[in-house]
Amino acid sequence: MTARIPLTPLTAAAFAPFGEVLEASGPPDRVINQGNCGRFHDLATLVAEGGGRIGVNLFDALPRALPYTLDMVERHPLGSQAFLPMHPHPWLVIVTPDEGGIPGRPQAFRAAPGQGINFAPGTWHGVLTPLAAPGLFAVVDRIAPDGEDPAANLEEHWFEAPWQVVEPG
Amino acid sequence: MTARIPLTPLTAAAFAPFGEVLEASGPPDRVINQGNCGRFHDLATLVAEGGGRIGVNLFDALPRALPYTLDMVERHPLGSQAFLPMHPHPWLVIVTPDEGGIPGRPQAFRAAPGQGINFAPGTWHGVLTPLAAPGLFAVVDRIAPDGEDPAANLEEHWFEAPWQVVEPG
Repeated sequence: MTARIPLTPLTAAAFAPFGEVLEASGPPDRVINQGNCGRFHDLATLVAEGGGRIGVNLFDALPRALPYTLDMVERHPLGSQAFLPMHPHPWLVIVTPDEGGIPGRPQAFRAAPGQGINFAPGTWHGVLTPLAAPGLFAVVDRIAPDGEDPAANLEEHWFEAPWQVVEPG
Repeated sequence: MTARIPLTPLTAAAFAPFGEVLEASGPPDRVINQGNCGRFHDLATLVAEGGGRIGVNLFDALPRALPYTLDMVERHPLGSQAFLPMHPHPWLVIVTPDEGGIPGRPQAFRAAPGQGINFAPGTWHGVLTPLAAPGLFAVVDRIAPDGEDPAANLEEHWFEAPWQVVEPG
């Protein structure tokens, strides 16, 4: 039997154990450009340890459908990883708590249009899962120093039995 | 008489004197996530001098229409500034060369859907000008240290006569 993980809305409070929700919510921190632009300031705790530095990448990912079969999660011990959709569509954010070095039960969030996230270093998470095409995201994460072993900042865990991420109810 | 600046397409070559175009163009640098995602790697030269650090912000800007009246440009001497649209609409990127500390004749680019940019430090540029609502962008730029004079990283120049940014032809 496959265990079911119902989707829940992505909120800053629910996501707090895993990182930050990056969104233009409420009044802006500053109004700039002669009143024409709101700045929501310094939303993400960016981390790049082990000789890395913060950089900007674009990810172009295949859209997925629900129910979504989750068979693995991964984490990056040396750096944070922010995902910012370059489209106005909802997308899936899947995380798990860490239980002594092993991922616990997954939680699945539906990011609303305009919501990005920043994973704290070491957070178990599913791979990038858009729900519509094109699945284009800006990704602000740790750029490894030249010659680093790719395994230094990537740990994967494959579940013995996959989970099914489903609509709620 | 108001001088007219015709829009041109945003390309990496045309924009090279001012910074970088951030786009998923051509084959990805790496294919990740079991073949489901292309990574366009480390696209932006991020700079934060003078005790600042790189951070992530969201900007929500009022959409503008063409012809667009350009009466000022600004620049940030201590840091780069990347703009990544969180929508699939074209938007305006306006820059000028520097001519002995004064902005020269503006150039106006129409960024295609999926194109972001990164301004090199000290690049004269217009304020954020989306062409559709919501004008939501992720902005990766220099976060000032606490207590810094805002003028330390912002220089504005108002033109004696405004420019008109117009459709080509």
